[in-house]
Amino acid sequence: MYAAVCEAKESGVNNIDEYIREQAASLKAARPTAVNLAWAVNRQLEIISAADGIDNKIRAALEEARTICEDDVEQCRAIGRFGAEIIKEISEKKSGEPVNILTHCNAGWLATVDFGTATAPIYQAVQDGIDVHVWVDETRPRNQGAKLTAFELTQEGVPNTLIVDNVGGHLMQQGMVDIVIVGSDRTTYTGDVANKIGTYLKALAAADNNIPFYVALPSSTIDWQIEDGVKNIPIEQRDPAEVLLVDAVVGNKVVEVNIAGKGTKAANYAFDVTPSRLVTGLITERGVCAASAEGTLGLFPEKQDELS
Amino acid sequence: MYAAVCEAKESGVNNIDEYIREQAASLKAARPTAVNLAWAVNRQLEIISAADGIDNKIRAALEEARTICEDDVEQCRAIGRFGAEIIKEISEKKSGEPVNILTHCNAGWLATVDFGTATAPIYQAVQDGIDVHVWVDETRPRNQGAKLTAFELTQEGVPNTLIVDNVGGHLMQQGMVDIVIVGSDRTTYTGDVANKIGTYLKALAAADNNIPFYVALPSSTIDWQIEDGVKNIPIEQRDPAEVLLVDAVVGNKVVEVNIAGKGTKAANYAFDVTPSRLVTGLITERGVCAASAEGTLGLFPEKQDELS
Repeated sequence: MYAAVCEAKESGVNNIDEYIREQAASLKAARPTAVNLAWAVNRQLEIISAADGIDNKIRAALEEARTICEDDVEQCRAIGRFGAEIIKEISEKKSGEPVNILTHCNAGWLATVDFGTATAPIYQAVQDGIDVHVWVDETRPRNQGAKLTAFELTQEGVPNTLIVDNVGGHLMQQGMVDIVIVGSDRTTYTGDVANKIGTYLKALAAADNNIPFYVALPSSTIDWQIEDGVKNIPIEQRDPAEVLLVDAVVGNKVVEVNIAGKGTKAANYAFDVTPSRLVTGLITERGVCAASAEGTLGLFPEKQDELS
Repeated sequence: MYAAVCEAKESGVNNIDEYIREQAASLKAARPTAVNLAWAVNRQLEIISAADGIDNKIRAALEEARTICEDDVEQCRAIGRFGAEIIKEISEKKSGEPVNILTHCNAGWLATVDFGTATAPIYQAVQDGIDVHVWVDETRPRNQGAKLTAFELTQEGVPNTLIVDNVGGHLMQQGMVDIVIVGSDRTTYTGDVANKIGTYLKALAAADNNIPFYVALPSSTIDWQIEDGVKNIPIEQRDPAEVLLVDAVVGNKVVEVNIAGKGTKAANYAFDVTPSRLVTGLITERGVCAASAEGTLGLFPEKQDELS
């Protein structure tokens, strides 16, 4: 949004407020499932509209961006502290044996400003001296697990093993997973969790094997309007090419290569919704709560007014 | 085994029976989870041992191989007929709207002699004039769905859409799957199903959404010794390179390319076990039965003596 206001000044747009509103709408439409982006854009829109004159608008946008950025770091740290407590409890039950954590996609420092959401409890636990080992779902079709999470964890010295998305159920069945922690793109205040496609399958396996399934999220990803996430959260469909082509290292270059036969038809649903009944708890910047209206409103009572 | 006896003759092996037993043991050890290979090797071993003289052994091995081959075709056809009845019933309930079938891995004519196991009911249904559409799991890490099943179905003119393994749960939740049909590498007589890794996750999602989950299998893959498949079926672990590298089309060639960061550690479990409670029914060459000892022994009463 800061860039949009600067652009408005440079190109001498006539109706600045209208231009900013259009840019905001276009940004928000880019991700129909995730709400964090829309939340940040709305914050900016309010600040920018309230400021008088283009230079004040630019200053206000930059300042708000910095605040959002600092808040994000602080919230991720808080999520880390609350989540690490859960990992610590498991570690104590296992007499210090490594806690096996399974995660899906990337909700680490490559996806946030710093520390991450789903990875924050892991980093905090490691800083607190707890032994952990992370099973990293590769997360097809974009392979964020293979490309980002495994890289991040290795950079931080956290023991990790990459697995294909099909493996988690087997590991849980065989007692090789102690806890699942994932992030979220949108969580209803009733506790239904939209996250990267495949999360629902891992939640089912966790429930079937009595393994705690936690979702780490800043409250900005909570949707206070929608009650039934499975029915009412729109699921982004993306280019089928993401399924048919993968990024690969060929020689010294990263290139896109075809992994399916010529003429293969593919569909690409980017997210799914895990019903609250499969979620052990939500780890937020204000603490851990049940995946229910009672849980989220208990931690964020000021949101009562926003319910539709 | 035919090749092994020919080899024994050509290289002038002294103790032929011992050589054949060694070759048989080595072949059987190649696939710890699947039992079909061991079953065929044992059949051959018996026939070859019983024949006198190397030339008779060679003739007997070839003849037995042909019999196994013909039996396989006939069994797959029978599985197709019984399975197509189930698809037909769903088609009638949907007033002829296309039946959406989800399958995992490849149990088609590229994996069997002809017609396949999991695909046999699909091919039969199509031949019977029933409208179907198949969701094809790509089946990481080896991508048998993308490379084999999608190709096979397209060759046979069966409408199909390739999806990543993460998608099935979402599709089932949204009413976009009417039935799941998979094959099996080993099924206990009590109905626990070892199949390609990830099958268990699809079975969980099917159960969670009241979608019928069928396993198509020739009786040669039934294990009449093991009662608890989750505890006692050994799961084959394969080279982690299968996770880190994929076959891709670069230019006009199929080459292996790296899809993970340098130094990434991976684990590669090839199969998982779906507990009988998640299986709606087994489609065998003798008919459809419940995934239970009562079910399998009802169709194969002569196996009662083999139970341990």
